Amino acid sequence: MADAQRLRRRLEIIIFHSNTVPGRWFDEALLFTILASLVVVMLDSVAEIHAKYDEILSLCEWAFTFLFTIEYLLRLYSARKPAKYAFSFFGIVDLLAILPSFIALFVPSAQYLLVIRILRLLRIFRILKLRQYLNQANFLVTALRGSRQKIIVFLLSVLTMVTLFGSLMYVVEGPENGYTSIPKSIYWAIVTLTTVGFGDMVPQTALGQAIASIVMISGYSIIAVPTGIFTAELSNAIRGENSILKPCGTCGKELHEAQASFCSRCGNSLYKRAVIPE
Amino acid sequence: MADAQRLRRRLEIIIFHSNTVPGRWFDEALLFTILASLVVVMLDSVAEIHAKYDEILSLCEWAFTFLFTIEYLLRLYSARKPAKYAFSFFGIVDLLAILPSFIALFVPSAQYLLVIRILRLLRIFRILKLRQYLNQANFLVTALRGSRQKIIVFLLSVLTMVTLFGSLMYVVEGPENGYTSIPKSIYWAIVTLTTVGFGDMVPQTALGQAIASIVMISGYSIIAVPTGIFTAELSNAIRGENSILKPCGTCGKELHEAQASFCSRCGNSLYKRAVIPE
Amino acid sequence: MADAQRLRRRLEIIIFHSNTVPGRWFDEALLFTILASLVVVMLDSVAEIHAKYDEILSLCEWAFTFLFTIEYLLRLYSARKPAKYAFSFFGIVDLLAILPSFIALFVPSAQYLLVIRILRLLRIFRILKLRQYLNQANFLVTALRGSRQKIIVFLLSVLTMVTLFGSLMYVVEGPENGYTSIPKSIYWAIVTLTTVGFGDMVPQTALGQAIASIVMISGYSIIAVPTGIFTAELSNAIRGENSILKPCGTCGKELHEAQASFCSRCGNSLYKRAVIPE
Amino acid sequence: MADAQRLRRRLEIIIFHSNTVPGRWFDEALLFTILASLVVVMLDSVAEIHAKYDEILSLCEWAFTFLFTIEYLLRLYSARKPAKYAFSFFGIVDLLAILPSFIALFVPSAQYLLVIRILRLLRIFRILKLRQYLNQANFLVTALRGSRQKIIVFLLSVLTMVTLFGSLMYVVEGPENGYTSIPKSIYWAIVTLTTVGFGDMVPQTALGQAIASIVMISGYSIIAVPTGIFTAELSNAIRGENSILKPCGTCGKELHEAQASFCSRCGNSLYKRAVIPE
Repeated sequence: MADAQRLRRRLEIIIFHSNTVPGRWFDEALLFTILASLVVVMLDSVAEIHAKYDEILSLCEWAFTFLFTIEYLLRLYSARKPAKYAFSFFGIVDLLAILPSFIALFVPSAQYLLVIRILRLLRIFRILKLRQYLNQANFLVTALRGSRQKIIVFLLSVLTMVTLFGSLMYVVEGPENGYTSIPKSIYWAIVTLTTVGFGDMVPQTALGQAIASIVMISGYSIIAVPTGIFTAELSNAIRGENSILKPCGTCGKELHEAQASFCSRCGNSLYKRAVIPE
Repeated sequence: MADAQRLRRRLEIIIFHSNTVPGRWFDEALLFTILASLVVVMLDSVAEIHAKYDEILSLCEWAFTFLFTIEYLLRLYSARKPAKYAFSFFGIVDLLAILPSFIALFVPSAQYLLVIRILRLLRIFRILKLRQYLNQANFLVTALRGSRQKIIVFLLSVLTMVTLFGSLMYVVEGPENGYTSIPKSIYWAIVTLTTVGFGDMVPQTALGQAIASIVMISGYSIIAVPTGIFTAELSNAIRGENSILKPCGTCGKELHEAQASFCSRCGNSLYKRAVIPE
Repeated sequence: MADAQRLRRRLEIIIFHSNTVPGRWFDEALLFTILASLVVVMLDSVAEIHAKYDEILSLCEWAFTFLFTIEYLLRLYSARKPAKYAFSFFGIVDLLAILPSFIALFVPSAQYLLVIRILRLLRIFRILKLRQYLNQANFLVTALRGSRQKIIVFLLSVLTMVTLFGSLMYVVEGPENGYTSIPKSIYWAIVTLTTVGFGDMVPQTALGQAIASIVMISGYSIIAVPTGIFTAELSNAIRGENSILKPCGTCGKELHEAQASFCSRCGNSLYKRAVIPE
Repeated sequence: MADAQRLRRRLEIIIFHSNTVPGRWFDEALLFTILASLVVVMLDSVAEIHAKYDEILSLCEWAFTFLFTIEYLLRLYSARKPAKYAFSFFGIVDLLAILPSFIALFVPSAQYLLVIRILRLLRIFRILKLRQYLNQANFLVTALRGSRQKIIVFLLSVLTMVTLFGSLMYVVEGPENGYTSIPKSIYWAIVTLTTVGFGDMVPQTALGQAIASIVMISGYSIIAVPTGIFTAELSNAIRGENSILKPCGTCGKELHEAQASFCSRCGNSLYKRAVIPE
């Protein structure tokens, strides 16, 4: 019983942590397997490859499903709190990465096969596990979180603009020039404002082209808004990183510049060793 | 009479303010109704849906018009200064949101029906009421206002550039390659400079492609200008937010950093309690 | 003779300066005339309008040429240093704005008519006079001048990239997919890297699409470079504006923050009146 | 023998350095020759020019190859450490710039001729020598190196997004609307997210257009991320440039602002001559 307990601890260290040698090997092998299974899914979607290598690819997919199922069960077995793992973000992603294959097993009717192909694509979520290896993303996330409110205001302004401009174009250009409905005209406004410009719908009338010009110059200019918001927040986050916790013995101010020797508030020395001759 | 007065006050609090429970309920119900009416207008513009559900959609639109009319009259009745409300931005938007339906009533001739559809779209302005819920947009507005002059200079430079490049392309490519007039060539220059690139007009000659390359690289580079302007202004606005009013007792400087304990001008303590032992 | 001298002085004040009432009127009238002549040139380029109103437009153009010629001669007459004016940027632009019409006069051969139309477009340079009214552009120009070297390095990097990627695409896609020569493939690389994306040439092979993906993600990412350069320079320029000339009486440091009362270098008071009690 | 030694030293100074008059002449002549050879390669790729001037262009290419070969041999002869040069970046580029012509000589089979044309394009790498003249690029490189980690996180996020959105579009739109495989749908997602928008594949279904709208607005917004990263790093790099090495005699802090006269850490004078009267 103590052996089973010890095995579980060892498994937990190997599977959930990567600060031991076998733990890092496991993580690297897992990452490689995820990428390989992703390549198989992608190749299977190419018609010519599917026609030729259907059987091999199908076999590979089942092999990967088998591996990921064992991995999922081991994770459940070795986790300190299995329920917490199962309902965590990665627990759900791990489950979604294997489910589609099993659903396809018990529902063999041809009609559903197409839907299964759709679900099969969810296996791509496996790649999201990559995020486990990316802890240095914190900075960007901090900056994005800090500017969340401003970004919402910005997105709502953009949605208002595309709704107004899209409706205006529907009236000006009309169904005969391809602007067949307001939603489709709003889609065009998004294509144009974001400076994507597919060219599948283009204004034909002089007035439509004038409005399109306004939309394009607006889109070209207001791209400055998210950029400005994010840059200002990121500068703040980086400045925050440069500050360090070094409480002043005299006045108590806690955050100081990394290089500071004297308190920026009361002017007294932050280090006992650095006494200025008086 | 005092009852009527009291009713008006209560109505004003419910309709114009949202700091009471019924006031917030009213605002939320209004926002939902506006969105619903917007969806109806959009669905009505889709040809297949219009063919099937014309009557229901028409009924819905009249119901919304009725509701918004009552709301408008109640706003006029309960406002402290009805005239001020009527000529305020939202007063005019509220009126424009109901007028098109009534104009369609008294002008039944088939020829005008199309025009009514155009006016009907003005109902979309209702969504602008969303702005009432977005007070946190102040920051972005401050930054935009601060950079207004620089943005006008930037837009005039862009207009000059597209006029010159558009005319040049009209001469170089000519009507046989789709550049049928100077205004249309300017439209192409806007499409290209803003990096939208629809692809409905493309240069065919080697010289035209060389000029187009210059336009594209210019557009790609000068997008830095609005971004730089806005970022610098937004940084200023955010720094302004971090400053607080904390007048110095010795020299009188009023604005200091949020964390400051000592005046950044004369070095004396900003707080009486924080005396440094000497 | 003194009268002629006085007339020249008055003319100079009216024509070259805008700080008197008639001077401002003259400038405003001139700006309006330039815009009107620009509209005439543009309308003349539209085939339908040219067919109908050829004579009127031709008359207008001659009227504008006549006005601008008189203006140019008066400028030459009233300028303190006529030669300096004639060879200044605006002197040359003023001349280029009237020359095309006169060249068309003495060269009546039909073959050259098309060329005249080309020269006629130079009249658009008149609008550049607008710059006289835009003194607040200094900021942006300072920022651009400060980042000139970095921008040249950036543009050379971009040119190197599009040359390499363009040649690579010529080899990979080849003439049968529309990449008929290296210069045209470089043009495609510019269209793609600047995120314009006309869509007149698109990669057909899998390898070509992979290379195109690299070009697009590169273009999407390195747009950060001009933006970063300009933002950093503009922040510097704005910070420079906030500095004011306030020489310190003790150590001589000349530039200080607008709000500063004490020298940031030696700590002594910048104002005699603001003595700190000791 | 001493003469040969002296000749090598003189050659080294002329070829590898540009601080003498003949050294600068050599570098300028080399730059001109590289550009000329580049023009020849490009002209040769244009079908009409190739048909007419095949012989002259072929001769030019051989002349350039001859010149660059002599240059390469002289570099090897005069370099202080020939092996170090040969395996340096520019040593390899210099070799790659001449090899293709010689490979074409000894492999005369018609089948390989096409491949030789491909290798011939490697001669374009010669232009990379331009980098020798661009030492002022350090700034941008410093900023890019500082933000390398963040840029990798950003690129991985973008790759994850285009994979997920591409697969989703493959399911939603399907092969009948041009989304023939997952890799091709991912290519479309890259085209759309980077706001290039070729328009060769466009969503046809309402759901597809809705997803495309999300991709476009995401791409339009997250362009802020690389820009913000680079701007923040570049500001740091520029601020770093403004700092100079001026060690404080009292506390030893080494880096100070260019204008500083007093240590920002201990407050003592950085210069002996600048003593404040007390």
